[in-house]
Amino acid sequence: MKLLRYGPAGAERPGALDASGQARDLSLLVPDFTPEWLSPAKLDALAAIDLNKMPSVPAGARLGVPVAGVRQFVAIGLNYRKHAQEAGLEIPKEPVVFTKALTSLAGPDDDVLLPPGSEAGDWEIELGFVIGTLASNVSEKDALSHVAGYCLANDVSERDWQIKRGGQWGKGKSFDGFGPVGPWLVTSDELPDPQTIPLELKVNGEVRQRSNTADMIFPVAQVVSYLSQFMTLLPGDVVITGTPEGVGLGIKPTPVFLRRGDVMTLSAGPLGTQRQKVV
Amino acid sequence: MKLLRYGPAGAERPGALDASGQARDLSLLVPDFTPEWLSPAKLDALAAIDLNKMPSVPAGARLGVPVAGVRQFVAIGLNYRKHAQEAGLEIPKEPVVFTKALTSLAGPDDDVLLPPGSEAGDWEIELGFVIGTLASNVSEKDALSHVAGYCLANDVSERDWQIKRGGQWGKGKSFDGFGPVGPWLVTSDELPDPQTIPLELKVNGEVRQRSNTADMIFPVAQVVSYLSQFMTLLPGDVVITGTPEGVGLGIKPTPVFLRRGDVMTLSAGPLGTQRQKVV
Repeated sequence: MKLLRYGPAGAERPGALDASGQARDLSLLVPDFTPEWLSPAKLDALAAIDLNKMPSVPAGARLGVPVAGVRQFVAIGLNYRKHAQEAGLEIPKEPVVFTKALTSLAGPDDDVLLPPGSEAGDWEIELGFVIGTLASNVSEKDALSHVAGYCLANDVSERDWQIKRGGQWGKGKSFDGFGPVGPWLVTSDELPDPQTIPLELKVNGEVRQRSNTADMIFPVAQVVSYLSQFMTLLPGDVVITGTPEGVGLGIKPTPVFLRRGDVMTLSAGPLGTQRQKVV
Repeated sequence: MKLLRYGPAGAERPGALDASGQARDLSLLVPDFTPEWLSPAKLDALAAIDLNKMPSVPAGARLGVPVAGVRQFVAIGLNYRKHAQEAGLEIPKEPVVFTKALTSLAGPDDDVLLPPGSEAGDWEIELGFVIGTLASNVSEKDALSHVAGYCLANDVSERDWQIKRGGQWGKGKSFDGFGPVGPWLVTSDELPDPQTIPLELKVNGEVRQRSNTADMIFPVAQVVSYLSQFMTLLPGDVVITGTPEGVGLGIKPTPVFLRRGDVMTLSAGPLGTQRQKVV
């Protein structure tokens, strides 16, 4: 299934794509895709709904984050070799982990608002996944069974706040709206191997990032297992898995950063597309 | 008021200390101290309850985290000069920020479980505060009005995971139970100046940390204002404000780390005391 949420920010309703790609409203059966709706049993129950019999979502409806009630928003850094190189940083021996504020979560096509005075806004296309069942000290072999599904994400970053303001990266990653996620959550049954997703990000129509999750240093199973060694992952937690090369910071000889009016378009095969205008 | 929650982990009930220091059960009036109960209007309403007429909490009841439904658990690093020095790190020019997993939250007297193989568990007594009203881009002058109250916290840290495992500090700070908070939340009206709190932590009866929040490099008002520049703070968010000198990592010539059977006792004047056994 491809689960989605649509409607005004803060008042989204649950839905899903039918076989023809038409979005259907599920709100008559499902209150919202809160964490308890991401368990295997609940996802199986959702799959029993004949989507053709559910109301269509109005064309042009805004899409929100495809899951509700997210409690933790975790990110992996430097998970593609060429990106670590372009950032001038060592290739990590184990996953680099940071967090983004919950309030950075945004719909896939919401405008990205740069903070006042920002001169170093940057893009980062990433594969995201959402936890379906609590994960604590899980093996790599069992790890993917804890994943409810996969989604596209943009780990929008303000490099001055990330790098120059001291300490941990979260500072440059946590502004409101700096975490567009969606358009939908592709449930794990439809994507048994998450290391096959093409990723492409354009700014104003120009390709800036083009890669594939096959190139991740630490694949999803390893990320889940690793995180679960030092923290408990909860249903609904969103984890984004690092960006490939091609960010603005890495452009030589002079980095290129986001300016108001720029448009970012992201695509990731079955995970769909995003489009954000910078304001 | 001194608000608290008591009962088994995951099934706590709300309560408050009466004038004599007796804990009273508020569950007949209040479902739980969820974020919406931390607004100024709700706190005023709680203050209207005659605690002497409410049932007593049974003696010896376990205490939990004094607020429920926490969404973000944020921590400030290196906020006391002598601690930055003992850690061999520069005194920061602006607050160092990291996060702890929500699942690290624990009651003030819960056992602290070291992860398998841990050889570098450490203690960090800290002043914590809880947000009462949404804070985004607030001035230092207005900052304290967004704080519902203050609490004692132990930012338990596994130094090997924090320092040697690559990247951000959260790795060493996020194990289940590594964030004891409580015993109670002292509401802001009872503590107009949070920079007056004595802090003392003992391990097995030996004083290891003794300081006062007057020594913080970045006081609470500055921390709130600073965080609110790059993230939106939500009601119920818990922020802990950094530890003074005297952590195990800083002991010369050889660091001293927690061993199973050790007992940490923490006290912080009006914020009360904690006692954790290491298991």
